Amino acid sequence: MKKTLMLCLLFPSIVTFGQQNLVKYVKPIIGTQKMGHTFPGATVPFGSVQLSPDTDTLSYELNGKYNGDVYKYCAGYKYEDKNIVGFSHTHFSGTGHSDLGDFLIMPTQGKLQMNPGTAADPKSGFRSVYSHDNEVVEAGYYKVKLDDDNIVAELTASKRVGMHQYTFPKSDQSHIILDLMSGIYNYDDKNVWTYVRVVNDTLVTGYRQTNGWARTRTVYFAMTFSKPFKGYGQKNFDKKQVYGGFWRKFDQNNNFPEIAGKRIRMHFDFATTENEKVKIKFAISPVSQDNALENLRSETPGWDFEKVKAQAQAEWNKELNKINIGASEDDKVNFYTSMYHAFINPTTYGDVNGQYKGLDQNVHTADGFTNYTTFSLWDTYRALHPFFNIVQPSRNNDMVKSMMAHYDQSALKMLPVWSHYANDNWCMSGYHSVSVVADAIIKGVYNGDPEKALEACIVTSNHRDYEGIGKYIDLGYIPAELSGTSVSNVLEYAYDDWAIAQIAKKLNKTSVYEEYTKRSQNWKNVYDERIGFMRPKMADGTFKKDFDTKSTHGQGFIEGNTWNYSFFVPQDPNALIELMGGKTRFAKRLDTLFTMHLPDEFFADTEDITREGIIGGYVHGNEPAHHVAYLYNWAGQPWKTQERVRMILKMQYKSTPDGLGGNDDCGQMSAWYMFSSLGFYPVSPGSDEYSLGSPAVKSATLSLEGGKTFQVEAINQSAKNVYVQKVLLNGSPVTNQTIKHADIVNGGKLTFYMSAKPKK
Amino acid sequence: MKKTLMLCLLFPSIVTFGQQNLVKYVKPIIGTQKMGHTFPGATVPFGSVQLSPDTDTLSYELNGKYNGDVYKYCAGYKYEDKNIVGFSHTHFSGTGHSDLGDFLIMPTQGKLQMNPGTAADPKSGFRSVYSHDNEVVEAGYYKVKLDDDNIVAELTASKRVGMHQYTFPKSDQSHIILDLMSGIYNYDDKNVWTYVRVVNDTLVTGYRQTNGWARTRTVYFAMTFSKPFKGYGQKNFDKKQVYGGFWRKFDQNNNFPEIAGKRIRMHFDFATTENEKVKIKFAISPVSQDNALENLRSETPGWDFEKVKAQAQAEWNKELNKINIGASEDDKVNFYTSMYHAFINPTTYGDVNGQYKGLDQNVHTADGFTNYTTFSLWDTYRALHPFFNIVQPSRNNDMVKSMMAHYDQSALKMLPVWSHYANDNWCMSGYHSVSVVADAIIKGVYNGDPEKALEACIVTSNHRDYEGIGKYIDLGYIPAELSGTSVSNVLEYAYDDWAIAQIAKKLNKTSVYEEYTKRSQNWKNVYDERIGFMRPKMADGTFKKDFDTKSTHGQGFIEGNTWNYSFFVPQDPNALIELMGGKTRFAKRLDTLFTMHLPDEFFADTEDITREGIIGGYVHGNEPAHHVAYLYNWAGQPWKTQERVRMILKMQYKSTPDGLGGNDDCGQMSAWYMFSSLGFYPVSPGSDEYSLGSPAVKSATLSLEGGKTFQVEAINQSAKNVYVQKVLLNGSPVTNQTIKHADIVNGGKLTFYMSAKPKK
Repeated sequence: MKKTLMLCLLFPSIVTFGQQNLVKYVKPIIGTQKMGHTFPGATVPFGSVQLSPDTDTLSYELNGKYNGDVYKYCAGYKYEDKNIVGFSHTHFSGTGHSDLGDFLIMPTQGKLQMNPGTAADPKSGFRSVYSHDNEVVEAGYYKVKLDDDNIVAELTASKRVGMHQYTFPKSDQSHIILDLMSGIYNYDDKNVWTYVRVVNDTLVTGYRQTNGWARTRTVYFAMTFSKPFKGYGQKNFDKKQVYGGFWRKFDQNNNFPEIAGKRIRMHFDFATTENEKVKIKFAISPVSQDNALENLRSETPGWDFEKVKAQAQAEWNKELNKINIGASEDDKVNFYTSMYHAFINPTTYGDVNGQYKGLDQNVHTADGFTNYTTFSLWDTYRALHPFFNIVQPSRNNDMVKSMMAHYDQSALKMLPVWSHYANDNWCMSGYHSVSVVADAIIKGVYNGDPEKALEACIVTSNHRDYEGIGKYIDLGYIPAELSGTSVSNVLEYAYDDWAIAQIAKKLNKTSVYEEYTKRSQNWKNVYDERIGFMRPKMADGTFKKDFDTKSTHGQGFIEGNTWNYSFFVPQDPNALIELMGGKTRFAKRLDTLFTMHLPDEFFADTEDITREGIIGGYVHGNEPAHHVAYLYNWAGQPWKTQERVRMILKMQYKSTPDGLGGNDDCGQMSAWYMFSSLGFYPVSPGSDEYSLGSPAVKSATLSLEGGKTFQVEAINQSAKNVYVQKVLLNGSPVTNQTIKHADIVNGGKLTFYMSAKPKK
Repeated sequence: MKKTLMLCLLFPSIVTFGQQNLVKYVKPIIGTQKMGHTFPGATVPFGSVQLSPDTDTLSYELNGKYNGDVYKYCAGYKYEDKNIVGFSHTHFSGTGHSDLGDFLIMPTQGKLQMNPGTAADPKSGFRSVYSHDNEVVEAGYYKVKLDDDNIVAELTASKRVGMHQYTFPKSDQSHIILDLMSGIYNYDDKNVWTYVRVVNDTLVTGYRQTNGWARTRTVYFAMTFSKPFKGYGQKNFDKKQVYGGFWRKFDQNNNFPEIAGKRIRMHFDFATTENEKVKIKFAISPVSQDNALENLRSETPGWDFEKVKAQAQAEWNKELNKINIGASEDDKVNFYTSMYHAFINPTTYGDVNGQYKGLDQNVHTADGFTNYTTFSLWDTYRALHPFFNIVQPSRNNDMVKSMMAHYDQSALKMLPVWSHYANDNWCMSGYHSVSVVADAIIKGVYNGDPEKALEACIVTSNHRDYEGIGKYIDLGYIPAELSGTSVSNVLEYAYDDWAIAQIAKKLNKTSVYEEYTKRSQNWKNVYDERIGFMRPKMADGTFKKDFDTKSTHGQGFIEGNTWNYSFFVPQDPNALIELMGGKTRFAKRLDTLFTMHLPDEFFADTEDITREGIIGGYVHGNEPAHHVAYLYNWAGQPWKTQERVRMILKMQYKSTPDGLGGNDDCGQMSAWYMFSSLGFYPVSPGSDEYSLGSPAVKSATLSLEGGKTFQVEAINQSAKNVYVQKVLLNGSPVTNQTIKHADIVNGGKLTFYMSAKPKK
């Protein structure tokens, strides 16, 4: 960090008056090992470009066919890997499925290698070995030495532009590879088409079109070099070359400026002096080459790498300063890295001129809002969007508007399930966008037309052809014969329906409120009182005979077992408690969940979490039970919420590369961390209430958009003092373990008095 | 025609005051048999949509691999075929290479068939047998009865919209197939991507993207039905389906509105009453679905098929009335069908809002001109564009502007060789766009910046990497070791350079004029005085040893032998005559050309003409010798020009489906016919002179854009009176066998006095 602080004297300061330097607590390397699926590269908050090293992409070319291991490479980078293939411009942060990795760039020297080579024999291709000792990983900045050719690579970014700075040794044969074939989760036929136009000796434009997790996705680019290349060329790996007299008339492989094909790599050649820096600015657009060029020119007009880096870090610092915590240095690292991960996505999806490609594949202009994509809603409706409603309300308002635009452009007439670059990849279950819409409306964040939003929620929730919704409406449950996830679907729909009811209530739509309140009780239809668990029900109304409460496989649930899912009634814990035999029995069940032994054979099924992502039978590395620790509050044992929350904070989040017990899931895990560290959590988004836990910070000041502040203070805070003796809101006792959204956004102070002993 | 005349009472009249009904002489069926490669379907003049039946497309699916016979299907329709596969919206007219055939539509009834079936077993698929007896083929209108299901199909078009009218028998199972896989010259991997969006029960939009003769080409569409379909679905023939939870969540094959893939066919289902007409309007755009929809709504607002048809035919009649000839009924059919074929292409390439996709794959707006594509310049620079300079000067001005836009968008910095939907397919040789530019400038037609146009010509002609231009510049010829078409390239470049010199002369650029005049003499470098033929020259300056004057294969010429190509010095026949030993010897050589026997073994090499396309050794079915009959004028034997021209007119153009002896080549063959029928021909475009022949018409009135008229009269005209005794221009004798462009465009009268005896 020393270098950064020195640079502040010369460049736009990262830290402005009244701000702390919080960028220094961000360690993007956290989560890059094992199952966190985060990436270490450079991005600005909610940026379109997320420029990061890929340590392998396991493209079809290397192994001939789909390699299941590609799941590891959701973020392109695995801390465990020994070499870097190149630096690509788009990445998911913490997802459980992979895509993106567009436009891989790699600097090399010496004999031209147009193949990435293999991990086993890195010298066989343009990839390079590297060492973590030579890596600098910061918010908005990444640096590494590429040992093969002794080239230092540095990356930074603005919102839509990635900036590269490569320091070369002296050579007449320095190269920049632009690999248009490479991508994350590549397989044969994923690359639909690429086009490259070499406009002049410093400017290249084009596009890449893929058929991956997003069925039909095109990213346009404009790329400029700080120094004219002396020559360039392509290698086309298409199995079949395009017909055309064209091919005979030119040497298409060298210095030919109009390239098209499915599988193309380009090289740009330079002579470099010792330590000469060659810089690249690489802009992307979802709309056109022209827009990419406009993005490039308006966001990064000059060639001053340090300035772009300083601007990126200043942007981060501004966002991070929205919450100032008092905590140990290690907790600060966890907290601000969580905040960093929470602010990576959703991603800005549109150009500086407001244009973006819509779900209908037409070009639209975002009128009065910033358009976003990368909505991993099954994860993020739980805590990330509620977190935004406190510290990023303007952005969350725009996110809801983006969802409404998605709905307007949807021929199916559905709000997004997993919005992905002008596509819906329909990943996971539920129609949880309605939760995000409801939470934003209930909390006064959404300033669009709420009637129209309600209509979109209603239409979406009545899509009879989608995942059993028709049966759910007709029968109140989904027959297990029809779906492998019939129970979790019902539980999630019931919660979502409750969220819709809350909008209707606010808008005085009584009949809608009543209808959806009734639907929201459908969870009761899959509760088997005899065994006390949620359980698949057959078309004839009987419960499925063979049933295993510990397994996550084939039991009617998506990414979870009934031990975790049976607590999924966030909209009405009291009714659940009653059905489960009252508070005491319910609390005991929670105790069992946190202490039981979940054999490896069941754990193996959950796939995207490490053994460490589990506490007893409680799976924190996946989302369905994220609210469960807070349910002790309803069971009359708030001290156990406090105890469990602190335990989870400590066990599940560590400031090391392998510090995350499961996928960060586009910020959901991080949002859980921040809420719980601050001492409260939104158990049921769409409600204006937060359930209290046990703060891990000593103090926190939330600087809200309107200028007000909300303070949290934990008196007698320590690692042992996890129990709350009393809570004061603006000096008045809080006795129901609950605060309201208004309590926060109106400004004020929440004081926890901590102790090592539970207050029973 | 009776029906059309009756309809004039009810609908916008095809014939307005002062016009003759000339549409009745157009027989689009001419050239659809054997090698004419014309299509019989519906289009308006220079239309974007050319909606026509395809009798086979020999897609890869049917025969597994590339079938050389696909060459027959350049226009999609072969008169000889017994069944129709469907009706597609884009076609080339008379080309020697195939592409297009986008968006094939076929009406069917009964059990759904999603495969076209085979010619041998048409019942195996959705194709249908038909009879020419049930075909009506007119300018702007096509009708046929599809015998398999007894459905009557009618087609008409506006500029960017094809309109279909299908008359169904009664059935609950009537279908419209939309085949997005089908295309002309289809092969595996040609279909890059397709997207379909079913907006509602009458509107469908989407796009098709191909990698064919045009490397990277996307056509967007918007399709509306006159009646809501009751259901719809898709069949996806992709070898590998796209990954995505998506696929599990919906029944994607039925009533699912967001479709994407490489190989897709759709069906739309109706119940029809007896003789119910289901109509479709199908608009295309090179830019977007939105633009296609805008095209559709602004060009064809209603559902009145007869009105759209009447408008199309009125447009044709307006264009055809630019020349009114007195001639036999059969000659009128040939003349006006030639005019029809000449006015099919170049095609309008852009939307009603002026937007089009440029060569750089960016969206541009044509500012003050209509943008055109389909420039088959190796063919059309000879007579088609000169013909336009007389009867379509505004359009030709826009065509030159389109070429200049192409140049501006070209990363290579080249004027088009074969402009093809935002691509250059680089087919054939030369840089003949410079001839079109020069002719338009010399004749005062181009109103853009001539200095910039000259610069574009100069830059294009100095593209050293293109087809031997570097060697041509350095050595004055292209060594035969380097190119299979070294001699024809030199001859064509030399002519093109002369054309550039004419622009320079007009702009008083003396040094450019001198440089290009010098280059224009390079033809002399490939003339072998010893044998009296143009001949390949080796790098060492000697002529290639093995050489056959009759063969077109491997002798240094493209689509021609040296017998034809040795006369290719249109810019300086006098110099050629001198080099060939004077007028008498030269005329004898011409005699030999027209009377020699060209054995089948040599003819076979020319590929795209019939035996009938040849007179002696003179190959009219291909272009290189199109000016040759007029060279007798330079050799002092104009009566032989007159004799040969009349012979060619008679032998090479017949009013039957097999009436064209070779590909119409986007109107070049037709333009030759019209010029020669009128009695003059542009031997060297870029000159303002026309060489006189022997008119085939009795009279002709050319109505010029400025309001002036130019008349041709042939006194004593008859089939036997092919010889010209004297010619008067506005009453004054013409003695040099030449008239000037100004003589035509200033208005006036050219009178030929015909006789059965040559005037020697």
